[in-house]
Amino acid sequence: MLQSLSIERTKTKKRQPAADQLGFGNYYTDHMFIMDYEAGRGWHSPRIIPYQPIVLDPAAKVFHYGQTIFEGLKAYKTEDGRVLLFRPRKNFERMNRSNERLSVPEVPVDDCIEAMKQLIAVDRDWIPTAPSTSLYVRPFIIATQPQLGVAPSTHYQFIVIMSPVGAYYSEGVNPVKIFVESEYVRSVKGGVGEAKTAGNYAAGLKAQELAKDKGYSQVLWLDGVHRKYIEEVGSMNVFFKINGTVHTPALNGSILDGVTRRSIIELLGHWNVPVVERPISIEELYEASRKGELEEAFGTGTAAVISPVGELNWQDDVLVINGGQTGELSKKLYDTLTGIQMGKLADPYDWMVEAVSAPVKA
Amino acid sequence: MLQSLSIERTKTKKRQPAADQLGFGNYYTDHMFIMDYEAGRGWHSPRIIPYQPIVLDPAAKVFHYGQTIFEGLKAYKTEDGRVLLFRPRKNFERMNRSNERLSVPEVPVDDCIEAMKQLIAVDRDWIPTAPSTSLYVRPFIIATQPQLGVAPSTHYQFIVIMSPVGAYYSEGVNPVKIFVESEYVRSVKGGVGEAKTAGNYAAGLKAQELAKDKGYSQVLWLDGVHRKYIEEVGSMNVFFKINGTVHTPALNGSILDGVTRRSIIELLGHWNVPVVERPISIEELYEASRKGELEEAFGTGTAAVISPVGELNWQDDVLVINGGQTGELSKKLYDTLTGIQMGKLADPYDWMVEAVSAPVKA
Ligand SMILES: Cc1ncc(COP(=O)(O)O)c(C=O)c1O
Ligand SMILES: Cc1ncc(COP(=O)(O)O)c(C=O)c1O
Repeated sequence: MLQSLSIERTKTKKRQPAADQLGFGNYYTDHMFIMDYEAGRGWHSPRIIPYQPIVLDPAAKVFHYGQTIFEGLKAYKTEDGRVLLFRPRKNFERMNRSNERLSVPEVPVDDCIEAMKQLIAVDRDWIPTAPSTSLYVRPFIIATQPQLGVAPSTHYQFIVIMSPVGAYYSEGVNPVKIFVESEYVRSVKGGVGEAKTAGNYAAGLKAQELAKDKGYSQVLWLDGVHRKYIEEVGSMNVFFKINGTVHTPALNGSILDGVTRRSIIELLGHWNVPVVERPISIEELYEASRKGELEEAFGTGTAAVISPVGELNWQDDVLVINGGQTGELSKKLYDTLTGIQMGKLADPYDWMVEAVSAPVKA
Repeated sequence: MLQSLSIERTKTKKRQPAADQLGFGNYYTDHMFIMDYEAGRGWHSPRIIPYQPIVLDPAAKVFHYGQTIFEGLKAYKTEDGRVLLFRPRKNFERMNRSNERLSVPEVPVDDCIEAMKQLIAVDRDWIPTAPSTSLYVRPFIIATQPQLGVAPSTHYQFIVIMSPVGAYYSEGVNPVKIFVESEYVRSVKGGVGEAKTAGNYAAGLKAQELAKDKGYSQVLWLDGVHRKYIEEVGSMNVFFKINGTVHTPALNGSILDGVTRRSIIELLGHWNVPVVERPISIEELYEASRKGELEEAFGTGTAAVISPVGELNWQDDVLVINGGQTGELSKKLYDTLTGIQMGKLADPYDWMVEAVSAPVKA
């Protein structure tokens, strides 16, 4: 399919933002990738074009019935000028699991990776190199059929846009304060919580705003059935180090199967740090803290990589973790993972994929 | 705000479809209404313009985080040439409740109704008059800020499009067969089930497809906590007549507060038919059927008005209701409600609102 990839370069390059102006998701590169889907024909017409608006019929299903899937991954420029992607196949495999749940057609994983590499090559000058910066890549699919019946769309677009980004939280790698949500729920078993689809994020906005008003940067969700078991944070999976063992909620259908989560579990395994995936109740966590056994807590995700949790607030019961400081293991995981991602440390697990090779020296 | 409403008429009118070609949501009228929202400025620039594509940055939040709300109501042309709307205020009041849940700014209800009336007046020739046809009006809001942080948008568009429609189900007012879903869940208390937002519909597609494959036209959802209590159908609330009393699931936060549902409850009240809103378990329904007490079942919604349910399938246990025939009460409710809506019956409850008055006779 990708043999027919066409590339149209922009005639008017945008001015690039300064590294300290980046923030998260505010600026977009000069080009984007698009391909179309039509029932009976499949994915077709892959093309790299200048970054430009999407033009859709107002009856397009994405506006009404939310049939949309997205992914998020990062490209890093190494000191020797190569561009590396972190486990990109995992993202497109997950995209296909999300697609399946939302009745969106499967995407060709190899073609998606190749298209993304070509797009990155075209916009390679946009990849920032200052510490903690990278190029955030956002592949997404939208249902475009202009039809108001509640049924899967016959037409879709798969699009990739890219944004040079700085730290996700203004706190950087400093500990964040997290509010444990008791009233609102993000997802439930049997629902779409495991899929990376727009509706899950819309559902979380209200609680997140209320938490922000109370001085917390994110919400920790509890399960929708018992309102008791820890699920995940807005855009991170969570880990707790209790008495030397690392615990993280098991994949249960309502939380995202994070690529960073998986990588952390693998890393800890290699380091012989015991790690358990299981249901973890919020009471248990508070109990562990009272016994002095809760040593560290951290969130994991593409955007923030590792984000130490310094404080939880559950029904006004404030739990300070590790004196509100970044724990030793959190720090080591952050340094190791970002080191591998930036090409500064060896990559013993073959996680990094070269998107663009080093420029040939003259 | 609406004093500044501008109207730009199309120069190329579309050909209108024949009444028997309509279906649901396939054709759109010549014009649409738009207004914009910007944080700090509020809703502004209301305009009626030729029906045309929406142009959005690919980073617009609606594509990624699903911040979108919609409504659906119908306009009917009476025999004497008036155009009537069914309880339109209820729709915009509900839109504001949905907005609140999804952190979308409130809309001005009176202005929305007035804008919709003006749009209908411009496109009044599009309102079909054949039996069971009407003009379906779809107001919706989309988040347009091009920013990838997970946070409420600073910019929105409120849009109204309109579609001449026929019967929603190919069955017409004949009984539909409904599959009771045991694996997938649409929503849960604490979630967004009560809001008319895109993600709820995306979440339901998969189960609906599986049900279609088995020969059922819709899914009946059970609650996400106990998987036991009846919630609603894809786009209808449900009612059951058991032993002379009409039962319908109580509003519990996870089902839609349907305008038709409310109207049916009021109508039954006026007729002195006992009606109870309460949690109804699926076992109870099967038990009532076994005792010969389940007399009728029907769904209610703007699209189908009243849709008799002739058969349920719960875990392969098939329950035929009223011999698979339309019940007497279902029929009476359908005739009364559509009679009022089409202006053929008196409107003792002041439900109908005139959108366009009758043409002056020469
Ligand atoms: C809800 C949610 N949980 C967890 C994560 C972490 O997943 P990953 O490590 O693949 O970025 C994300 C995404 O970034 C997310 O959106
Ligand atoms: C999920 C859902 N339930 C119920 C209804 C019925 O609501 P109303 O009677 O207001 O059309 C609808 C919409 O039409 C719906 O989408």
